[in-house]
Amino acid sequence: MKAVVMRNDAMNVEQVKDPEPGPGEVLVRTLACGICGSDLHMFHHCESALQGFKRGGIPLEFDPAQGVVFGHEFCGEIIDYGPGTERKLKPGSRVCAVPLVVRPDGLENIGYSNKYPGGYGELMVVQEPMMVPVPVDLPSNIAALTEPMAVATHAVARAALQGDEIPLVIGCGPIGLAVILALKARGYGPVIASDFSAGRRALAEKMGADVVVNPAEKSPYRSWLEAGAPADYDATGPMAMLGLDTRARPCVIFECVGVPGLIQQIMLDAPPRSRIVVVGVCMELDSFEPVVAIGKELNLSFAFAYSGEEYGQTLYDIADGKLDAAPMITSVVKPEGVTEAFATLATPEHEAKIMISFE
Amino acid sequence: MKAVVMRNDAMNVEQVKDPEPGPGEVLVRTLACGICGSDLHMFHHCESALQGFKRGGIPLEFDPAQGVVFGHEFCGEIIDYGPGTERKLKPGSRVCAVPLVVRPDGLENIGYSNKYPGGYGELMVVQEPMMVPVPVDLPSNIAALTEPMAVATHAVARAALQGDEIPLVIGCGPIGLAVILALKARGYGPVIASDFSAGRRALAEKMGADVVVNPAEKSPYRSWLEAGAPADYDATGPMAMLGLDTRARPCVIFECVGVPGLIQQIMLDAPPRSRIVVVGVCMELDSFEPVVAIGKELNLSFAFAYSGEEYGQTLYDIADGKLDAAPMITSVVKPEGVTEAFATLATPEHEAKIMISFE
Repeated sequence: MKAVVMRNDAMNVEQVKDPEPGPGEVLVRTLACGICGSDLHMFHHCESALQGFKRGGIPLEFDPAQGVVFGHEFCGEIIDYGPGTERKLKPGSRVCAVPLVVRPDGLENIGYSNKYPGGYGELMVVQEPMMVPVPVDLPSNIAALTEPMAVATHAVARAALQGDEIPLVIGCGPIGLAVILALKARGYGPVIASDFSAGRRALAEKMGADVVVNPAEKSPYRSWLEAGAPADYDATGPMAMLGLDTRARPCVIFECVGVPGLIQQIMLDAPPRSRIVVVGVCMELDSFEPVVAIGKELNLSFAFAYSGEEYGQTLYDIADGKLDAAPMITSVVKPEGVTEAFATLATPEHEAKIMISFE
Repeated sequence: MKAVVMRNDAMNVEQVKDPEPGPGEVLVRTLACGICGSDLHMFHHCESALQGFKRGGIPLEFDPAQGVVFGHEFCGEIIDYGPGTERKLKPGSRVCAVPLVVRPDGLENIGYSNKYPGGYGELMVVQEPMMVPVPVDLPSNIAALTEPMAVATHAVARAALQGDEIPLVIGCGPIGLAVILALKARGYGPVIASDFSAGRRALAEKMGADVVVNPAEKSPYRSWLEAGAPADYDATGPMAMLGLDTRARPCVIFECVGVPGLIQQIMLDAPPRSRIVVVGVCMELDSFEPVVAIGKELNLSFAFAYSGEEYGQTLYDIADGKLDAAPMITSVVKPEGVTEAFATLATPEHEAKIMISFE
């Protein structure tokens, strides 16, 4: 099959061996696959990222020298079944699938594996119970947004916003946009969103953010104050720091960038007693001052991936129109355009999600 | 009055001007005052600690060149009242007090202030509403433990342990010991405690810890496994990491050390989905790998100080015997012994709380 292969530091379109479905597995022809920020990071900082995952106990490893086909945000079409499968869906049916192969001897991450090529190639093998059928009238490009939307669905569920908490989304790349959408779909708000890029701010508005801020011009925490505190409330004053002035609506900050230094910056800027939900995946060593978090009694929740239920529900919510994720797609490329897309996404002023189409 | 004065990098017993109670304030003669780890840190790393507090928005500042009398864990005796006071307690009454002076123009921290000397001196000025009377049969040394015990009471309240969560206390210095005591007083357990020092491990047992571990010999996380998971549960295996094996009782880790690197170490060692409550006050720049916390979906809560209600209740719980904090006191010194006590506490194999007595 044709596939975009990363091998060591290079990425090329190559002919590689077709994958074959083993017991309980299904052969799928790729229709659409999104380019994820983690793919970019894995391409540029592969060794350090793999080491970080290993130290963190995350079961994700592969040998970059053997060649890897990225792509875990996909929609495909069933071609054939391996042995020992239930075959409830006919060949030709379109499916999304949790990009994970769970076997007694361990796990493989589709798209970050030497054994299971991802959606940057024409063919994939997925595990039968991981599949969710795609409703007929949902375009494949949109269905392929299920995976990043499920990440946001999970992060918002994990945040468990309560009462009068105000969500503030830092960074309006694909994950920030997905978080805005997931928040609005659940009726939370006002949602305040912040990004340096005008293009991404426009997308944040499309996703339903109530207040969209350019942090170069105005602090998003000022918008939080305006939305949730009386005019004379001083978030940095001693009464607020000591918890003696509690008139402001609490702030729940979604960190959707994932670069070193951002958690410390949020800690410095956050109002006292804020909760920070870390959704951006920073794969490098980071630094912070605990005393800053201590004095404000901050809380950090780290969110990762999603459950199978969240994944399936997200696909149905997209199909029902409850989650209108379509505006996230800013470009569609063929496999031959992936290298250029990676270059564009290094400074993504005008891009959010770039979709690879095989149709 | 006589006082232990820190000026720049030196600490000496000196004669200084008696403090005078202003409006709403009370002159108190010090009876006992504990040496806090924060005092040690403030002595050895004053400038960086003050900068950290400033960046964190914590209203705590003073000029070390002007001289500071430490001491915020005190018990005293009322000598005289300033103007505009209610005078409900007679002179001679013993009191503890929240070491804070709240004024319209700002805050002062008793013991970390150029204006309000702390309990390392013979006399102090406290604010009248911050005082709590000490029951007659409670020794002053024990009453002076109210402040560190209130820190632990608050941290345990903030942790809000639920259901079958197992608390694990890392570090059995005064704060770790106080956290063990506060946990046991509320019926949580089994409480697992860990410290490299044999002397502190013996104190942890006295405080009621159910399992006490020397981490040089055995991981406290192994004790957690033994206490709260079936024999075939693998906390580092992919099923636990993915949340697909949920048979272990969740772990709530109290970080009671406060040195750089410890949060990262806990993140590396902690089981997936653990909660970490940071009680130790690390005043230096620290580093960690977000990807480690992300993969395990950890949660970090930073706890600081206490409310007035928590402070008062803690004193009454100590007096009632609900919190038997007395074993925490490992030495009692006179003001002239403070410099040596600071040196001892730099490598505190045999010490926990050293109390300065003025009686």
